[in-house]
Amino acid sequence: MLFKNKNLVVLKPPMGWNSWDCFAANVTEVELLENAKVMEEKLKKFGWEYVVCDIQWSEPLAGTENVTYRDFADLTIDEYGRQMPAVNRFPSAADGKGFKDIADKIHAMGLKFGIHIMRGIPRKAVELNCPVIGTDVRARDVADPFSICQWNGDMYGVKDTPEGQKYYDSIFALYASWGVDFVKVDDIAHEHLYPDHPYGEAEVHMIRKAIDNSGRDMVLSLSPGPAVIEKAWQMERDANMWRITDDFWDDWKLLKAMFERCEVWQKHVSPGCFPDCDMLPLGRIGTGFRAGRDTNFTRDEQKTLMTLWCIFKSPLMMGGDLRELDEFTLGLLTNENLIRANQEGAHPTELARDDDHAVWTSEIDGGRYLALFNLSDSEKEITFDTSELDMQVNKITDAWTNKEINQANINNGVIKIEIPAHGAEMIVLQ
Amino acid sequence: MLFKNKNLVVLKPPMGWNSWDCFAANVTEVELLENAKVMEEKLKKFGWEYVVCDIQWSEPLAGTENVTYRDFADLTIDEYGRQMPAVNRFPSAADGKGFKDIADKIHAMGLKFGIHIMRGIPRKAVELNCPVIGTDVRARDVADPFSICQWNGDMYGVKDTPEGQKYYDSIFALYASWGVDFVKVDDIAHEHLYPDHPYGEAEVHMIRKAIDNSGRDMVLSLSPGPAVIEKAWQMERDANMWRITDDFWDDWKLLKAMFERCEVWQKHVSPGCFPDCDMLPLGRIGTGFRAGRDTNFTRDEQKTLMTLWCIFKSPLMMGGDLRELDEFTLGLLTNENLIRANQEGAHPTELARDDDHAVWTSEIDGGRYLALFNLSDSEKEITFDTSELDMQVNKITDAWTNKEINQANINNGVIKIEIPAHGAEMIVLQ
Amino acid sequence: MLFKNKNLVVLKPPMGWNSWDCFAANVTEVELLENAKVMEEKLKKFGWEYVVCDIQWSEPLAGTENVTYRDFADLTIDEYGRQMPAVNRFPSAADGKGFKDIADKIHAMGLKFGIHIMRGIPRKAVELNCPVIGTDVRARDVADPFSICQWNGDMYGVKDTPEGQKYYDSIFALYASWGVDFVKVDDIAHEHLYPDHPYGEAEVHMIRKAIDNSGRDMVLSLSPGPAVIEKAWQMERDANMWRITDDFWDDWKLLKAMFERCEVWQKHVSPGCFPDCDMLPLGRIGTGFRAGRDTNFTRDEQKTLMTLWCIFKSPLMMGGDLRELDEFTLGLLTNENLIRANQEGAHPTELARDDDHAVWTSEIDGGRYLALFNLSDSEKEITFDTSELDMQVNKITDAWTNKEINQANINNGVIKIEIPAHGAEMIVLQ
Amino acid sequence: MLFKNKNLVVLKPPMGWNSWDCFAANVTEVELLENAKVMEEKLKKFGWEYVVCDIQWSEPLAGTENVTYRDFADLTIDEYGRQMPAVNRFPSAADGKGFKDIADKIHAMGLKFGIHIMRGIPRKAVELNCPVIGTDVRARDVADPFSICQWNGDMYGVKDTPEGQKYYDSIFALYASWGVDFVKVDDIAHEHLYPDHPYGEAEVHMIRKAIDNSGRDMVLSLSPGPAVIEKAWQMERDANMWRITDDFWDDWKLLKAMFERCEVWQKHVSPGCFPDCDMLPLGRIGTGFRAGRDTNFTRDEQKTLMTLWCIFKSPLMMGGDLRELDEFTLGLLTNENLIRANQEGAHPTELARDDDHAVWTSEIDGGRYLALFNLSDSEKEITFDTSELDMQVNKITDAWTNKEINQANINNGVIKIEIPAHGAEMIVLQ
Repeated sequence: MLFKNKNLVVLKPPMGWNSWDCFAANVTEVELLENAKVMEEKLKKFGWEYVVCDIQWSEPLAGTENVTYRDFADLTIDEYGRQMPAVNRFPSAADGKGFKDIADKIHAMGLKFGIHIMRGIPRKAVELNCPVIGTDVRARDVADPFSICQWNGDMYGVKDTPEGQKYYDSIFALYASWGVDFVKVDDIAHEHLYPDHPYGEAEVHMIRKAIDNSGRDMVLSLSPGPAVIEKAWQMERDANMWRITDDFWDDWKLLKAMFERCEVWQKHVSPGCFPDCDMLPLGRIGTGFRAGRDTNFTRDEQKTLMTLWCIFKSPLMMGGDLRELDEFTLGLLTNENLIRANQEGAHPTELARDDDHAVWTSEIDGGRYLALFNLSDSEKEITFDTSELDMQVNKITDAWTNKEINQANINNGVIKIEIPAHGAEMIVLQ
Repeated sequence: MLFKNKNLVVLKPPMGWNSWDCFAANVTEVELLENAKVMEEKLKKFGWEYVVCDIQWSEPLAGTENVTYRDFADLTIDEYGRQMPAVNRFPSAADGKGFKDIADKIHAMGLKFGIHIMRGIPRKAVELNCPVIGTDVRARDVADPFSICQWNGDMYGVKDTPEGQKYYDSIFALYASWGVDFVKVDDIAHEHLYPDHPYGEAEVHMIRKAIDNSGRDMVLSLSPGPAVIEKAWQMERDANMWRITDDFWDDWKLLKAMFERCEVWQKHVSPGCFPDCDMLPLGRIGTGFRAGRDTNFTRDEQKTLMTLWCIFKSPLMMGGDLRELDEFTLGLLTNENLIRANQEGAHPTELARDDDHAVWTSEIDGGRYLALFNLSDSEKEITFDTSELDMQVNKITDAWTNKEINQANINNGVIKIEIPAHGAEMIVLQ
Repeated sequence: MLFKNKNLVVLKPPMGWNSWDCFAANVTEVELLENAKVMEEKLKKFGWEYVVCDIQWSEPLAGTENVTYRDFADLTIDEYGRQMPAVNRFPSAADGKGFKDIADKIHAMGLKFGIHIMRGIPRKAVELNCPVIGTDVRARDVADPFSICQWNGDMYGVKDTPEGQKYYDSIFALYASWGVDFVKVDDIAHEHLYPDHPYGEAEVHMIRKAIDNSGRDMVLSLSPGPAVIEKAWQMERDANMWRITDDFWDDWKLLKAMFERCEVWQKHVSPGCFPDCDMLPLGRIGTGFRAGRDTNFTRDEQKTLMTLWCIFKSPLMMGGDLRELDEFTLGLLTNENLIRANQEGAHPTELARDDDHAVWTSEIDGGRYLALFNLSDSEKEITFDTSELDMQVNKITDAWTNKEINQANINNGVIKIEIPAHGAEMIVLQ
Repeated sequence: MLFKNKNLVVLKPPMGWNSWDCFAANVTEVELLENAKVMEEKLKKFGWEYVVCDIQWSEPLAGTENVTYRDFADLTIDEYGRQMPAVNRFPSAADGKGFKDIADKIHAMGLKFGIHIMRGIPRKAVELNCPVIGTDVRARDVADPFSICQWNGDMYGVKDTPEGQKYYDSIFALYASWGVDFVKVDDIAHEHLYPDHPYGEAEVHMIRKAIDNSGRDMVLSLSPGPAVIEKAWQMERDANMWRITDDFWDDWKLLKAMFERCEVWQKHVSPGCFPDCDMLPLGRIGTGFRAGRDTNFTRDEQKTLMTLWCIFKSPLMMGGDLRELDEFTLGLLTNENLIRANQEGAHPTELARDDDHAVWTSEIDGGRYLALFNLSDSEKEITFDTSELDMQVNKITDAWTNKEINQANINNGVIKIEIPAHGAEMIVLQ
């Protein structure tokens, strides 16, 4: 470390669960807490800890009318224009308690609690022209009428002024009072936020300061991507994780495209700073989108996904309903070698990539992880000459099975492994 | 005419006065009527007839706070969300009378009355969720929360639905009841209305139908430009005039650039359809922008401007304060040859153009207009060989002075005229 | 006509045959003359007259090596760097006679002869540094080493200098001496000729002057498209026809897309100036591309194609091998009503267009043509209210069958016709 | 190092002299050797070692006709189409000896020798269709006729085929035989090599392999920029240095813009891999461009330039004529603290940047370099709080003067220094 990064609230990639992939905009208190309970019982010991309530928690009618977002939704806000959980969906939020009760329960399980917000101030706060705490101005003075999200009409952007900062301070003070540990800020990290802005740098920076001003450690996660690599320095200055693609779903094309994005961002993985490959659409997903299904990924694709996310040190945020975890999916989330690579690996580095295959490595206690990917549509032998590595290889273990690799696959230091279409192998070299 | 164009309310380019160039967003009833009075007395007999009240007439505080548009302005609207004139600025609008009184007075002068509107429905109407006349829906059902103007925050776009049409019908019925003859619709004709729309075609078409449904003839003017030439057919189907550039001001670079735009649009001038070079920033302008001045154009540039607008058959909308008309400017507006070219000329055609000069012609009763422009920065002899024209030339008259051209300037049918820098000559060939 | 267009060598859309669609880069003297013979016998009386030899006639090995264009092909050129027909393919060109013999034979049939050229000067002429006729410079002095075609490596662009003009003069003098009546110039009219040029304006203008300087009337045809509508004025100044799309083939998507292009260009059809929808890929095509086939268009699509090309007044250049003309295709090419619309119609005008249908009209001797198109994928009733037209309708004839339309299809002036998917109806209104 | 980088021929940023900034395309053997002599005598002991002959050394008439590059220049090539030094400019190259003699002399001075090449194969080799060594094909088989440089017409790109590789092998074998230590490849690293290519990846990779195949260590330098950050991984795989901007000259706007580029590329500085800020246009430059001058940079700007290049670890390639080195410029090139930062510093990191200032740091033996830049147009106090650094600061030295910083400038660990407009301060923290 050359300097004291203020963001070092997380030295390792955050691991947790997020409500979006399964529950869309409609998750409820019961669903949050039941998923937290499964995490406590089955996943916590492997390092999983964040329980994140995604978008629209202040919208009482979220998910009605067969749309994800209703135009001009009547959000629940307090007298200062700050969003509050919709009480019909989160009963413990009654009487202005917000997410305090849920956060307390999740903390009692030994877990951490996160929430999603859209950048900005609610249109409803602007209609009502609510006062901004700590200032003598009102919502209309801090809202930017020309800065609107293109896909959700709830908010106006906040102007980069001292009063705008105060508005952000006011909401993060509220989140701190609830005990929030993680905030995913949406509509802020993509490459075309406005026609002439690569991303919402000014609002991200205000949010960074608002977290610092709150006095509580909170992980700052930016969404959606693709983030602009030219702005990596700004991302690292202000945030802990930022999406490197648009929304990721259970579609091979999107998974294959992630390899190019990881290649681009590999030098930007460091303690406190994690380029984010997005949630894991595994197990039972899509329910809240009226498209409930088991993930469309094949088992080989699921291994590929976990192998890439782990060696690249992406945050790991499970998207499927934990209450319906099957054995295979549970195995994906609890493989100790993979999770160790994700949490303890260092310097993820792409060694090779073309249209048919990719090879990655990272360091671990003097040893190495080596991930071999078959990106083609048919079974394929992937070879790698370990003499290219700057190490002496004594032992080779299959990370997924934790068994030593058959010597027949190694010849003079050259590893050759048959990998199924869209599949991956993860190896520990010692 | 191959077909009955429904827009044939104006067979000749509209001529009139518009409040913008001088009064910006702040014009008042007194200023409107005083300008109308001057038009009646000095200009009407030359064909000038429209008096147009430009932007922000429903905003009581327009022009305060040293900005042109105030964020979240509190517009005057009726119970159906329709903008009404701000009574502090337009006293005759009291008691819901709208612009009826002003229109009546202007009609009584033998003139016509026009207004400006932004496309869409006021944000305030959406906040109040006003009912939409003739439907059982309300403002939030017809407003598109993602369709906002990038420079004025007053409105939301209207959705292209039967109920959206009813909203537009309701406002044009109101304008018809006032006696409006001309409507300039803003934020609708430029090439990048939305990231992926070349212009607001759907809303233009709804407005066309709303005018037809109103039962009153109204000229439809679209703003701002540049309009997209690929959409010329749609413009001609729906509108009477549409801007071919962004806002035009008293700047030689903008005037010179207009030549390229006229070249592009020349085939699209026809009865009822007039590509629009924008208002004439002549005489006293800029007052409402806190930048009052006499036009920055030199006299030669002013002649060039009028010559181009007239031979191209652009609408002629004077922008300067008519109460302060000096003799030179009055002369520009009342030259009978120029106005006849504008109103009666046919088939405006560019004969030549390069960086230094341009030549245009148009037909008039078997004769021709010929306009020679010196676009260079120094005096220059412009030559033109009349044998290129498909006519026998017997007599050559200077349109500006109405005198026959000195034969020394003509040799074997080749006209040679010294023209000052940025200047123009207009000739009648018979 | 406001001015004497120097290009008025063709007042009506050229009709003819071009070797490309069938013979690709490989046509021979025998094939040219045999096709001309069929034209003389079967088509001439309907107005077909041009026989055009398309690309690569100076390349002896054209079509070998299974590619359309060979890199660094060894073109046949004369001592002045001018392309000459490859004698192995065009035996009559021996002894430097060029295309004279073929032109004479075609003229003797009462037909006209056309050739294709790439813009520029052969790379081989530059390698040999041939002298430029009428100058004391050589090929390297007039060639622009940075101006190359992106898909055919035979040529360098010619610099816009007096010597460059002389080179173009030298080749058009040669063509005039052969008796060429029509020149299709390639790699010159598309929208991205160079990164920063919308099209090759300077070279087009040199070619225009070279034709004028040659003293022989030649039709100038520019290829490929899409031409840029902003440059329509330049096209009309210099050329007789110019492509409004990229290469057109027997694919419904391309045919459907042509409607949008005709909409854009409709105001630019005038005597001597014909926006060009490209050749007719009808009958037997593709042989020279190693993909011989009968056209993939259905019969309804073929009617649609001919109806659009005819009412729009596109040049008509048959692409199929005339020696293999079947009765249906012959009928398409010899329908007198359609050809009259193409040759004699005036003011082609689109009346309506959406994703499912289009309606066009044009004038003929006080009457009208009306073309109704079903652009959807299923049979559909197309309706049109003739009261929209500015005429009194007394008689309605089906142009394809030349029979009066059943009155059951007309009600109060509203025409309703069932048209098959992708089909068209052409009507004469009198 | 996670893997054995094959490019580790240079672990530190190359330091040397390049003929371009002063001699343009026209440098001669005498000028090369005289500059080498000055380097040996005055600069070698500070680490300067490469003497690089830039573009057009095979062109006998380079620099004549008042242009930098002559069209269709008659390059000197050998029978295999490989460029050879023009003997009139490099007499020692007579009898096919190439650069061997010059390289020997430079090696004898204890220095290293570098050359510039354009990617590709000479057009002249293609005209003559020279054989390709080690194959049975010829130049026309490996040249890509569509791949040409946009500003120099000497070459065609080489196809990515086994025979294309052999051509590159043949030229690098020749360079190895001459004793070349450094190759700057031009027209290969900018972001728009072709319309749809971000850069010439395939040819860079062939060149990488050709160097490996040559058996001689050569530094590979890619030009011009801006290189595309998305392709950083490919750059690092294949090259040692690559330009991160277009050509850099003595213009403050270009120098200021370099800060943004260094910000973007900072994570990509590592042993063997150096993002390249381009040559140092200091001292006497421009002679060969018919614009001889002393650098236009002020002395403060020159310090800023050296400070940024040194802390960022850019390669240092002096561009001015070493024979005319004045004391000030010599001082810039021989400051031991600055050169040590460039050669031995680690992890260059931007700490702050806005329109007015920038702060950078890097590591050195547990200590730190700290560079403070005033990017504004007036004198300005730049402050930096050393508590932001992850170190204990005991001693603060001005790197340029090598004196301890006056304690008046430090208060509680906060450094405040007045820096002139466009100036810089470089500090050593221990």
